[in-house]
Amino acid sequence: MSGFLNGKTDQEIIDRITDGIVATYDQVLIKIDGTNAVKKSIIPNNKVVLISGGGSGHEPGHYGYIGENMLDAAIMGPIFEPPSPSQIFKVIQETYNNQGSLLIIKNFEKDVNNFLEAEKRAVATGMKVDHVIVNDDCSIESSSYKQRKRGVAGSVLVHKILGGAASKGLSLAQLVKLGKQVVDQTRTLGVSFSNASTISNKSAQYKLAEDEMFFGIGIHGEPGYRKETMQSSERIALELTNKLIQQYKKNNIKKLAIMVNGLGSTPLLELSIFMSEVMDFLDINHLGVDFKLMGNFLTAYDTAGLSLTFVNLKDEKWLAYLNEPTDAFGWNH
Amino acid sequence: MSGFLNGKTDQEIIDRITDGIVATYDQVLIKIDGTNAVKKSIIPNNKVVLISGGGSGHEPGHYGYIGENMLDAAIMGPIFEPPSPSQIFKVIQETYNNQGSLLIIKNFEKDVNNFLEAEKRAVATGMKVDHVIVNDDCSIESSSYKQRKRGVAGSVLVHKILGGAASKGLSLAQLVKLGKQVVDQTRTLGVSFSNASTISNKSAQYKLAEDEMFFGIGIHGEPGYRKETMQSSERIALELTNKLIQQYKKNNIKKLAIMVNGLGSTPLLELSIFMSEVMDFLDINHLGVDFKLMGNFLTAYDTAGLSLTFVNLKDEKWLAYLNEPTDAFGWNH
Repeated sequence: MSGFLNGKTDQEIIDRITDGIVATYDQVLIKIDGTNAVKKSIIPNNKVVLISGGGSGHEPGHYGYIGENMLDAAIMGPIFEPPSPSQIFKVIQETYNNQGSLLIIKNFEKDVNNFLEAEKRAVATGMKVDHVIVNDDCSIESSSYKQRKRGVAGSVLVHKILGGAASKGLSLAQLVKLGKQVVDQTRTLGVSFSNASTISNKSAQYKLAEDEMFFGIGIHGEPGYRKETMQSSERIALELTNKLIQQYKKNNIKKLAIMVNGLGSTPLLELSIFMSEVMDFLDINHLGVDFKLMGNFLTAYDTAGLSLTFVNLKDEKWLAYLNEPTDAFGWNH
Repeated sequence: MSGFLNGKTDQEIIDRITDGIVATYDQVLIKIDGTNAVKKSIIPNNKVVLISGGGSGHEPGHYGYIGENMLDAAIMGPIFEPPSPSQIFKVIQETYNNQGSLLIIKNFEKDVNNFLEAEKRAVATGMKVDHVIVNDDCSIESSSYKQRKRGVAGSVLVHKILGGAASKGLSLAQLVKLGKQVVDQTRTLGVSFSNASTISNKSAQYKLAEDEMFFGIGIHGEPGYRKETMQSSERIALELTNKLIQQYKKNNIKKLAIMVNGLGSTPLLELSIFMSEVMDFLDINHLGVDFKLMGNFLTAYDTAGLSLTFVNLKDEKWLAYLNEPTDAFGWNH
């Protein structure tokens, strides 16, 4: 909806997003001056600090995941562009306690570079900082430089599991180890029902006809693996469910968490129908579901579509962490 | 997104919506057999029972408002069509306790007729049942039969205030009185950025060009009061804020609750920017805001757009009721 943003510079857009969110949740969130970052009004001093972020355009990601048993702070850049290393460094400083800080990063080249540069600067000043890289998108097989597995909606579940674990007192090193284990069991597939957003790069990375859809797209307009005539919810649920099950070795799924995520322009009516069909297909495959999440969790600005995420909960504790209460406004459970 | 629903009858669509939602929130919600209605897994016996509902296509309305300090049950009909009197009567029966039941109805002809018919049947069997009709849409001046003031997003705030009051032990008669007072202080204005949904009546009630918007539309594709070339967020915020302030007598606004509501295809990024601008205009008018809500609360299937709601909190208790905690999944605060 480009007319809606008319007359605003990129900086004004992200300032307004931050202001609108902080105004709405002013009892629990505060802005970190001089940045587009938000933190808890009180940073706890008895646990590792969890920080995430990336480009804007994924709301409620990631401000919406700041809260009890989730993140302590999040920093956002312009739409589909990560914040700079200096801005990230400032957030690490402003939220630091003596327990160390964990950066949760989505696996995009610029995001990884900027967050790791900030981590390097912080470590050089004597701070304890480490990171986990989320790469749950399984639409891409190759892990080459240009075709890296992207970090998408599964990040939200990683925030929650690590957030719950951090509150239980796990050390920075333990959280890094746990984060890698969880990411290894997390897989996401997305579909788009509309043209890619024209916001990033100002030109769409793919075009769809009125009645077309695209399997395997990313959250910044990255093209997918197959275009088709628009399919029914049932057909889409079948394809995504089957492809995700195939990502795990047979009989290797212990307990399962699933997330139906809207890309921001897909109404809850459609997500609910899709969830019901996914549940049916999992039932046919004799797979029970121990944890379900449905809503707009990690969106892609100006894109209609949805994604499905599985986490194979290899350890009982992961389920307990998912079930810990939180006041993070984006977590809807 | 009509292709998404292909191959499903109207009944299959609403069954799938109900199933998807009940599957996701199965720890707190259960379906009432033989209906498209959902209730709390345990109906409290020490308070008046609150029931709402209407057509589907407004998700998370109204299943999303079942929870502590909000509704006890909700019943949904096909997309944009209310449930039948017999279905509503069944919900009243299945949730009845000796404290009485309050129906919260949006002011559309069919909704009012069907809910009041169900109330009549229930009263005839000796049950204590009464109702509140919400008519917050102020885009329509006339209150003639064909131009009645519609019930829209303000319903959600009415659910919350009455839900909080019911938990404090107010009687059915007291809740009806309070409901009328709150409705009288609640005003909403909506705008659409897309054609009306083609789902109801199978033909859109208005058409917009690619770069057009429409002020004052309803939640079922009802036309608004003025079409314009797509305006910036700031201009829309100015128009809605000013028109809403004018609904109240000068200096008559005590404490103010506001809600920025997405119609379901409008991303949170845009709602946040809009919220920030509304806050600025209220500030210019020397109006403080005591309660804020932002998200997709009462949507209009297949419609891009948003609405702004004001409630003039004439009584301190109303604010306290809004702030009571709830586990209703659609309430995001």
